[in-house]
Amino acid sequence: MREAHDCPFCAGRESLTPPEIYRVPGPGDTWRVRVIPNKFPALESDVEEGHEARDGFFERLDGRGVHEVVVETPDHTRQLPDLVEDHVKAVIDTFVIRLRALMGDPTHRYVLVFKNHGKEAGASLLHAHSQIIAMPIIPEDVRNSLNTAKAYYERQRRCLFCDVLREELRDGRRVVEEREGYVTLAPFDSRLPFELAIYPQEHAHDFASLADEQRFGLARVLKRTLQRAKTLLGDVPYTLVLQTAPNAAPRPDKPYYWRTLAHDYHWRLEIVPRTTRLGGFEWATGLCINTVSPEDAAQALRDAEAWS
Amino acid sequence: MREAHDCPFCAGRESLTPPEIYRVPGPGDTWRVRVIPNKFPALESDVEEGHEARDGFFERLDGRGVHEVVVETPDHTRQLPDLVEDHVKAVIDTFVIRLRALMGDPTHRYVLVFKNHGKEAGASLLHAHSQIIAMPIIPEDVRNSLNTAKAYYERQRRCLFCDVLREELRDGRRVVEEREGYVTLAPFDSRLPFELAIYPQEHAHDFASLADEQRFGLARVLKRTLQRAKTLLGDVPYTLVLQTAPNAAPRPDKPYYWRTLAHDYHWRLEIVPRTTRLGGFEWATGLCINTVSPEDAAQALRDAEAWS
Repeated sequence: MREAHDCPFCAGRESLTPPEIYRVPGPGDTWRVRVIPNKFPALESDVEEGHEARDGFFERLDGRGVHEVVVETPDHTRQLPDLVEDHVKAVIDTFVIRLRALMGDPTHRYVLVFKNHGKEAGASLLHAHSQIIAMPIIPEDVRNSLNTAKAYYERQRRCLFCDVLREELRDGRRVVEEREGYVTLAPFDSRLPFELAIYPQEHAHDFASLADEQRFGLARVLKRTLQRAKTLLGDVPYTLVLQTAPNAAPRPDKPYYWRTLAHDYHWRLEIVPRTTRLGGFEWATGLCINTVSPEDAAQALRDAEAWS
Repeated sequence: MREAHDCPFCAGRESLTPPEIYRVPGPGDTWRVRVIPNKFPALESDVEEGHEARDGFFERLDGRGVHEVVVETPDHTRQLPDLVEDHVKAVIDTFVIRLRALMGDPTHRYVLVFKNHGKEAGASLLHAHSQIIAMPIIPEDVRNSLNTAKAYYERQRRCLFCDVLREELRDGRRVVEEREGYVTLAPFDSRLPFELAIYPQEHAHDFASLADEQRFGLARVLKRTLQRAKTLLGDVPYTLVLQTAPNAAPRPDKPYYWRTLAHDYHWRLEIVPRTTRLGGFEWATGLCINTVSPEDAAQALRDAEAWS
């Protein structure tokens, strides 16, 4: 087990982090995955619930929520695609378990799982970790995506994303891999070069409902996808985000199982290498200038080795 | 006049750029500001007009448009806030003149003026320059902003931005400067630390209609605002964007003067220092985590020296 001189996420330095929330144990008293509160949280749980104040002309909503860190390995020198498949699954299990726990609080309207790898992608520590933020609103971009899916479903009585997957598999040019019930794509509307998305091939709106055997498959596909990106692009900074359904009223009989209004949604993992900078054009317009077509990206990623 | 070894924007290297579109002349055969086609354009004008193709399930719109570069000075060592006020005005005049020219083509639905300063903000060359992109659509974020303004106007019969300005001046905590008919603000909804916006205090939806004397005032205010940011933050990368009304059908009698559907809009310059990175949270949600309140930012910027 290799460690870095002053990294608070390394094995043996557990006392440097706030008190542990959850762990996947390893042999003896070791751990494989560890969840801790973020020391510099974007949102905090001790803010009064739903307090919305008028600040003159403007509206404010106080930032009540939770901000956790998932330390993906005790080993400072390994990144997510370097971990054995079973360990990647332990990370995915941890996401599921924390999502279920955080969605038990109905004031958490949305729970976001994301990962910043590398300084250019916003990471402040290099030790492999992800973040989970439970927040009191459904963010605007998520709401827009939910609304688009709902409008499509109401018109077509089919899931928008299922239709996209069917068309992508028929066409084939943007498909990187189809495996274990998942489809890895270079999306048609890729905003940055070599953007990737992993979709469950069968309709599923809710990542937190993922069964154990589906998590094995996802661990393999995620590892392979990250390996392909690393083979092709090197150890570039990247952003990984989980797009999944928002929280809704919890069922008191099954605290981790909730009704949701977003059956017409479709969860997916987005992996976005951050090899180019977003400039004024992107800032002003919300559009992106992407110099690599998704067809070329998919071809290059298909050709890149995945050794899992 | 100082130049860099291999910079195509320096005086004396005009032959390295594509043929000049426009210049503000200096003494003799020199120039102060020069407009040239972007050598690596995001959009090109030789694409067939309005060609919209179905690509299986998906829709494409070919990227017809224009991508120009405004070289702001022949001097490699000066940046926009270092130029004399009269020279800053020549840059603003150039924006107005090119906007009018590009809006003469009704297929240019939106014309964006923006500037990336510094590599971190996406600039590939350090020599002071801005960019202008004329595009065949109104970008989504601009459309959302236009729609919000229109909905507010229809309800209140007042401009949303005029109301915001009135409230900001009454409150005062987020005002950096009020001068020459302009208000410099740290916006209430600042997405990044030390974000700034310059608004004309009197209602005006259309930057390209700006009269000559208003451009003098704007040159002074823009120079002072950039100087304050530089005093406070140093020579950090920043993004500057002009938010203004979209193009509409041109009037044949006044080719540079067009009707617009956005009288309820309000143009402004946004200046966004890029001292933090956008990570997975911002990517997934469209929200931003900003660790500096606009009230603190405005206080620090008011205290920072502007020497113009």
